[in-house]
Amino acid sequence: MGKRVVVIGGGAAGSSAAARARRLDPEAEITLIERTGMITHAPCGVPYAISGVVPSYRMLRTYSPERFASERRIRVMTNATVTSIDVDRKEVEVSLGNGKVERLGWDALVVATGAKPLIPRSLEGVEEVRPVLLRHPEDVVEAQRRISGASRVAVLGGGYIGVEAAEALVDLGKKVTLYEMMDRLLPAAIDAEISRVLEESMVRAGVDLRLGQPVRALRKRSDGVAVVTDAGEEVFDEIVMGLGVRPNADLAVSAGVKLGQTGAVETDEFMRTNVEGVFAAGDLVEKQHLILRRKVWIPLAPAANKEGQVAGANAVLPGSLRMRGIVGTAVTKFRQTYVARTGLSEAEARANGFSVESTVIKARTKAGYYPGGVEVTVKMVAQSGSGRVLGAQVIGDDPVVAGYVDVAAAAITAGFTVEDLFFTDIGYMPATAPVWHPLIVAARTLSGGRF
Amino acid sequence: MGKRVVVIGGGAAGSSAAARARRLDPEAEITLIERTGMITHAPCGVPYAISGVVPSYRMLRTYSPERFASERRIRVMTNATVTSIDVDRKEVEVSLGNGKVERLGWDALVVATGAKPLIPRSLEGVEEVRPVLLRHPEDVVEAQRRISGASRVAVLGGGYIGVEAAEALVDLGKKVTLYEMMDRLLPAAIDAEISRVLEESMVRAGVDLRLGQPVRALRKRSDGVAVVTDAGEEVFDEIVMGLGVRPNADLAVSAGVKLGQTGAVETDEFMRTNVEGVFAAGDLVEKQHLILRRKVWIPLAPAANKEGQVAGANAVLPGSLRMRGIVGTAVTKFRQTYVARTGLSEAEARANGFSVESTVIKARTKAGYYPGGVEVTVKMVAQSGSGRVLGAQVIGDDPVVAGYVDVAAAAITAGFTVEDLFFTDIGYMPATAPVWHPLIVAARTLSGGRF
Repeated sequence: MGKRVVVIGGGAAGSSAAARARRLDPEAEITLIERTGMITHAPCGVPYAISGVVPSYRMLRTYSPERFASERRIRVMTNATVTSIDVDRKEVEVSLGNGKVERLGWDALVVATGAKPLIPRSLEGVEEVRPVLLRHPEDVVEAQRRISGASRVAVLGGGYIGVEAAEALVDLGKKVTLYEMMDRLLPAAIDAEISRVLEESMVRAGVDLRLGQPVRALRKRSDGVAVVTDAGEEVFDEIVMGLGVRPNADLAVSAGVKLGQTGAVETDEFMRTNVEGVFAAGDLVEKQHLILRRKVWIPLAPAANKEGQVAGANAVLPGSLRMRGIVGTAVTKFRQTYVARTGLSEAEARANGFSVESTVIKARTKAGYYPGGVEVTVKMVAQSGSGRVLGAQVIGDDPVVAGYVDVAAAAITAGFTVEDLFFTDIGYMPATAPVWHPLIVAARTLSGGRF
Repeated sequence: MGKRVVVIGGGAAGSSAAARARRLDPEAEITLIERTGMITHAPCGVPYAISGVVPSYRMLRTYSPERFASERRIRVMTNATVTSIDVDRKEVEVSLGNGKVERLGWDALVVATGAKPLIPRSLEGVEEVRPVLLRHPEDVVEAQRRISGASRVAVLGGGYIGVEAAEALVDLGKKVTLYEMMDRLLPAAIDAEISRVLEESMVRAGVDLRLGQPVRALRKRSDGVAVVTDAGEEVFDEIVMGLGVRPNADLAVSAGVKLGQTGAVETDEFMRTNVEGVFAAGDLVEKQHLILRRKVWIPLAPAANKEGQVAGANAVLPGSLRMRGIVGTAVTKFRQTYVARTGLSEAEARANGFSVESTVIKARTKAGYYPGGVEVTVKMVAQSGSGRVLGAQVIGDDPVVAGYVDVAAAAITAGFTVEDLFFTDIGYMPATAPVWHPLIVAARTLSGGRF
């Protein structure tokens, strides 16, 4: 009999883990258990399904459960909830939704239960108002139903989810008001100079930005729902929750799995938890940050997928693959304005004790004489003295900015200094970049005249 | 009196050298001598000025001579030809074109005379037919004049210049036939799998590709000009030369400057030639290849600019800045099809004694469900055993492919293995990349199932 591998959670990490285990062990008995009806689903696509850019939420998956099951010889259980993990017996109890319960034994267990929307219980009125959630593809139908009848919509939170929700709502013709407690957008990800450019883009599109306005309460009213801030209260037809997510780790914790300082599940580089035979991967686990040299919790799909691969590999071939750290690369957009970042922002670097230098430059995406180029803004942060590149942020009306940040991510991973980056052989032709690439210009500026 | 710096050549390298010298030495007496009427000109833009994508060849420059001179306090001499360099007296003789001659003394001399079109003297009829040249922005007027009356145009050469010339001619509505001696396009830069995709794009646009057909002679005929191959001869209205360039090093050689094994000027990392006080920078010099660990001659603008910076810095502050090597990053396009490459192609790696593994994958530029993505083809080459990434080539109908290759260029410069690249924290959002980025997919495939 083959090794029994049970994976809880059919999202990016869980599906990757199951597929990887199969690839490396043709004999293993693999079961993938998913709470909803979809596996290999893509929460990142939810805003675009809401707006209709993606025609149906059903497209937000890579495989149907049937195809994944048959092509990979994996037992896929959908609409099935793991109600408990018995670590001593090495069994999970699965509720099949029709009142039936099944118990499955495992030799290796991968917990990949992801993240869930952050709903602050302390926010007065939140239980009563029940803001619209945009987390799972299966949330789309309910969200669209509620939004369709609304004309005035408030978005709570100015992080990635809030910005992407605002885009979807503007695309649907709604009057959008976005509340953010901090005085700028994406405060945890980017510095003020880059936030300002994003804010201008959103204001131009008609979004009413309420920055530096913590929401104190939500209230049901006869004419809608009210958002209460220190400035007073304002009534909307619907409220969309965009405050971010938190680790969905209760099940893991119930099995004795330890959380790290970040509040997410702690694993080693093999994605092993503290519990023998139990792995964890994806949005519920902490990640090692290569610059900070400590654990952080940044739940994004690329790392989740790779962690899934690593967990799945080690579930069947112990010690065969190690996860590497991240550098915090992330991308979002508001309509035509793309913003990407990697490494540490200046604020983040300073808060972590780095002595830094930074620069903000504007440059074009194509040769000056070539049509179709746009101006982008690049902020680059380096460690004082060593010149080591610590971070880069780019914003502009072209998806190419995501590529710039990928180059910076590779450079930061390799420990490049500003001089190393300046001399990196980045490509050029008039239609794809200026001869002095925006990253090279930023590196040069940051050298303070040395080159 | 300040240090006297004379720079010969007002292109990318020469202008950068002069500007850098000024920046680092406010007292220096700097003279920039340019053969034509333009400085800071962009030869890479010539095909787009020919086609009209760029409305005038006059746009193919960053600065007017007057502005460059006044903003930087540099004496700029245009339409001025250096006729000789007297190394013992440290003087150059400059012909001013109106019969006047001026002699200028120097403490540091930077030779940045660039490259010139390769016109094989052994090709029968080439002197008589005088094919159209597309090298300098000032060639544009003459080229447009000759092409405007032509309907059938032959392009000689299937390298970067030939491909870009063909694009310009197709854009102008010409019937284009391209002759390439080798059996595929860009044979020195990319492998056959990538060439094929480019060839398909060009054929779809109506270009008649004559691959594997060395041109034996050109002949003037009453009804046009004939291209003679082993298959016979064919008559065109005009012939465009796209065989590439060679170092424009005669002046340097006349001053005793040594050429390297590549036939281009040899310098050290400070851009010093073998002649005391004489620097060289740009398309006439060899570059250090970081993978091959030897000199190569790949004349492209980004390295030229950086070499100019280095030469200019060391001209006024000896030993202050070192040039780094290149990894051979290059980009071109044919209409909507972009092709980029870095490092070694598989053919190049094998020819240089590397034992390699390679993969060719197809992937999309956006999440599968997100509209607007296109399929791209990625070839990745790694060293057997070590897994070190040696090269990447990407082709597809989106300029984003240039960005992929920039990421690979940084990874190769850093000595990344395939595993390092797989785990690099490249960004993701549905509108900018699939969650498994095409580079990550290529790295994974190349791992042979290890991850």
